[in-house]
Amino acid sequence: MSPNLDPPYIARCAVLAMALEVSGTPKPGNIDRDHDYVDTKYEDFIAAAIGVFPVMEKACTGGGIGELILEASDECVKWQSGGNTHFGAYILLFPLIKAAMSGTDHLKENAIDIVRDTTVNDAVDFYKAFSKVAVRMKDSEDLDVRDDSSLEELRERGLTMYDIMEISSKNDMVAKEWVNGFARCFKAGRSILEKRKTGSLNDATVLTYLELLAEEPDTFIVKKYDLEKAHYTQRLAIDVMDRRMTLNELSNRLYMEKINPGSTADIIIAGLFIALLSGLKV
Amino acid sequence: MSPNLDPPYIARCAVLAMALEVSGTPKPGNIDRDHDYVDTKYEDFIAAAIGVFPVMEKACTGGGIGELILEASDECVKWQSGGNTHFGAYILLFPLIKAAMSGTDHLKENAIDIVRDTTVNDAVDFYKAFSKVAVRMKDSEDLDVRDDSSLEELRERGLTMYDIMEISSKNDMVAKEWVNGFARCFKAGRSILEKRKTGSLNDATVLTYLELLAEEPDTFIVKKYDLEKAHYTQRLAIDVMDRRMTLNELSNRLYMEKINPGSTADIIIAGLFIALLSGLKV
Repeated sequence: MSPNLDPPYIARCAVLAMALEVSGTPKPGNIDRDHDYVDTKYEDFIAAAIGVFPVMEKACTGGGIGELILEASDECVKWQSGGNTHFGAYILLFPLIKAAMSGTDHLKENAIDIVRDTTVNDAVDFYKAFSKVAVRMKDSEDLDVRDDSSLEELRERGLTMYDIMEISSKNDMVAKEWVNGFARCFKAGRSILEKRKTGSLNDATVLTYLELLAEEPDTFIVKKYDLEKAHYTQRLAIDVMDRRMTLNELSNRLYMEKINPGSTADIIIAGLFIALLSGLKV
Repeated sequence: MSPNLDPPYIARCAVLAMALEVSGTPKPGNIDRDHDYVDTKYEDFIAAAIGVFPVMEKACTGGGIGELILEASDECVKWQSGGNTHFGAYILLFPLIKAAMSGTDHLKENAIDIVRDTTVNDAVDFYKAFSKVAVRMKDSEDLDVRDDSSLEELRERGLTMYDIMEISSKNDMVAKEWVNGFARCFKAGRSILEKRKTGSLNDATVLTYLELLAEEPDTFIVKKYDLEKAHYTQRLAIDVMDRRMTLNELSNRLYMEKINPGSTADIIIAGLFIALLSGLKV
């Protein structure tokens, strides 16, 4: 284990990953340093990232994944007025933070073990946190998260948080990361590190985001609109990759059409965190 | 004492103040979210702000002011490649952080007591930290900070850090804050809170910065160039206040002429910190 990988170090990497992700511009469709939404602004994301520092530090040494997501969600909204800005990111960051406490050599394997070890209590806490953000999204198809009866049902069926993520994985690319061994998070991390060798940190972030967008339809867009809109966004990203459209044109189009690929941004946060742990230079 | 004013809370306010200051745009002449320098970029300031979190937390319960500035300076450059981005801000933040541990009711009085209680050891540590950034600035007129003999001289003359700041106060607006009871820091804090009532956080930050710039010649500009250039910058800021020039015109002019009012930015950081402690909403 690197002497640096202590809780205060790991927590700062997690906070910095959130701050760098939202700073990366233009990150078509999502909030960045030059793009606000009506109800959420860039500074909300920055304050939210800094505000959850103690929860990130606590995650290194204790707390269940569900409990940590619930705590971070509560803390997040105390620091700014843009809502629960990082809910999807927490789902990825907390297992990775815990895994980082055993060093970076087996980060992926350790994160896989950690999510598989989640409990029914994690699932219950996760749903409590999710129910607070659910008003902003369509319902989960699998469980109604807005009433206590669904929490009872969770307990009766003995579903762990891992089970919930497995059920959700076909409709949610963040949940899918729990099932596929954080494959796209690590891929994003490698891509950011590789691109940083020859380019700026901002370009490494933005270009990796674009690659992810071109690779798979963003499931946040599917939930907010439908699969067709997500495929449309993916095709536009491919157009930029193939130089049939500029990044700024894509950016303007997605902002005008209010299409925000939020889950892809969550993967970028996890990728930046992995890259920072692996020596990414700011 | 508000239950919130514990070390993790105060430290987050300090980190957030640094992040919000550098995000405020356009902040003519200084690095902001849309303006980098050749050797320092926006992300360097964000990483530097987040990187010093543990030193900010430590300051709440221990460590001399000089020692904390030295530690923060060392930590700061580990997280990014743009140099000691916040040296002037540390001089203001650490006394205010320590004062905040006794609540916000007598923040100003407590900060005054804290700087008056600084020691010769604080002065020695401060100069050790300053010697590392001094290559970027002209020498102090009063003490050559680059060799050990000046540290010996400090000890022989029995100069405390407060004494040093008093000597420097005629040429350095940050040092002057120690002598004048942090007058402009608190004024900036009140201005930011007041402007936030009717405007955005960004506008509150930028307009307060402009007011400070129009009020006094920035001593960082004096050190980098001369008093004439600082007065020239002040006159331009007055022109913007009086609507003879736009903020963007001022911004473009200062960036082109490489005039960065760095000490005014330090005051803004302290003002944002005071405002956050006093309930500023992000």
